Amino acid sequence: MTSPLLEQLIDAFRVLPGVGQKSAQRMAYHVLERERDGGRRLAEALAAAVDKVGHCTRCRDFSEAEVCATCASPARDVQQLCVVESPADRLAIEQATGYRGLYYVLQGRLSPLDGIGPNELGLDRLGERLAEGEVIEMIIATNPTVEGEATAHYLGQLARRHKVRPSRLTHGVPLGGELEYVDRGTLSHAFGSRSEMP
Amino acid sequence: MTSPLLEQLIDAFRVLPGVGQKSAQRMAYHVLERERDGGRRLAEALAAAVDKVGHCTRCRDFSEAEVCATCASPARDVQQLCVVESPADRLAIEQATGYRGLYYVLQGRLSPLDGIGPNELGLDRLGERLAEGEVIEMIIATNPTVEGEATAHYLGQLARRHKVRPSRLTHGVPLGGELEYVDRGTLSHAFGSRSEMP
Ligand SMILES: [Zn+2]
Ligand SMILES: [Zn+2]
Repeated sequence: MTSPLLEQLIDAFRVLPGVGQKSAQRMAYHVLERERDGGRRLAEALAAAVDKVGHCTRCRDFSEAEVCATCASPARDVQQLCVVESPADRLAIEQATGYRGLYYVLQGRLSPLDGIGPNELGLDRLGERLAEGEVIEMIIATNPTVEGEATAHYLGQLARRHKVRPSRLTHGVPLGGELEYVDRGTLSHAFGSRSEMP
Repeated sequence: MTSPLLEQLIDAFRVLPGVGQKSAQRMAYHVLERERDGGRRLAEALAAAVDKVGHCTRCRDFSEAEVCATCASPARDVQQLCVVESPADRLAIEQATGYRGLYYVLQGRLSPLDGIGPNELGLDRLGERLAEGEVIEMIIATNPTVEGEATAHYLGQLARRHKVRPSRLTHGVPLGGELEYVDRGTLSHAFGSRSEMP
């Protein structure tokens, strides 16, 4: 390698998901050859996000404000609360459907073997939220995996304990798949025709 | 989106080659969820490289020093000069073969329609370099594309004008392909059994 700084850059790119040595090289060369301004912008955006983005105290999604723009918006319907595993799932639903309610982001799913129980997912806070009495329907949009289903079951019981109606996305979401990668049409349909939990 | 800084980060990731909206989202979430330290390192490496990496005055490859480590190394054979189109091609040859000579990086190929002539590729400087008399063999490793072959032809004439022996990688490199993506074995073989230009 002719440049130590370039070598460090290639190495640093490998922190990104799905980026091996070859892609990292391609990225570094591309930025240096054609996109120095864009590279500078990326460096600044990355430093700012890593330092300043925390979590919304209401919904646990990423936010640099204490309460995120969605939770703070008077235009959202506070009677519907959609519970998802990750920020990416929340974004997929927001982009694919016309949903105007609020969200709750677990940042994971129940997984006792990994030490992830209700408290790690903020389900104590979620219980307090339901106890406030504003939420009427809880749309459970965990992934259709074994752990996602177990989490959904737990959430359904939590909802009923607070007299909140739990609902689940209709089948249509492929079994074993990840919401994030479901095409918009399927996701929108499944969201629209969600069924009340038995 | 719940966070303007996150939105800016996703947008900034799209400067990278092959990164669309979905991959950019995945990268941003991955860094914020699991790799804040790695993200900070990437931001710093990117800022440093973009600001400080220029080109070696001898070989035109990337370098933050005026003369890169390869050109400055007493361990390299100054009688062989391998001419490549891009830093990525140079790196591919360096990694796949046991070559111990020097390089010259064109940073492009002849393309009159795009206004890329000999001067844009530093061929005037290359001519002066050959006139110094140290180089005995010029290994022409441009890509086996139409423009790459035209560039090779030009380079061959330039070499002969300076009494330097031009050689070309053996066939084995697939026609129409890019050196950067050739597997190591093929590239190593083609490099080792290069033939003198007719
Ligand atoms: Zn929020
Ligand atoms: Zn050099």
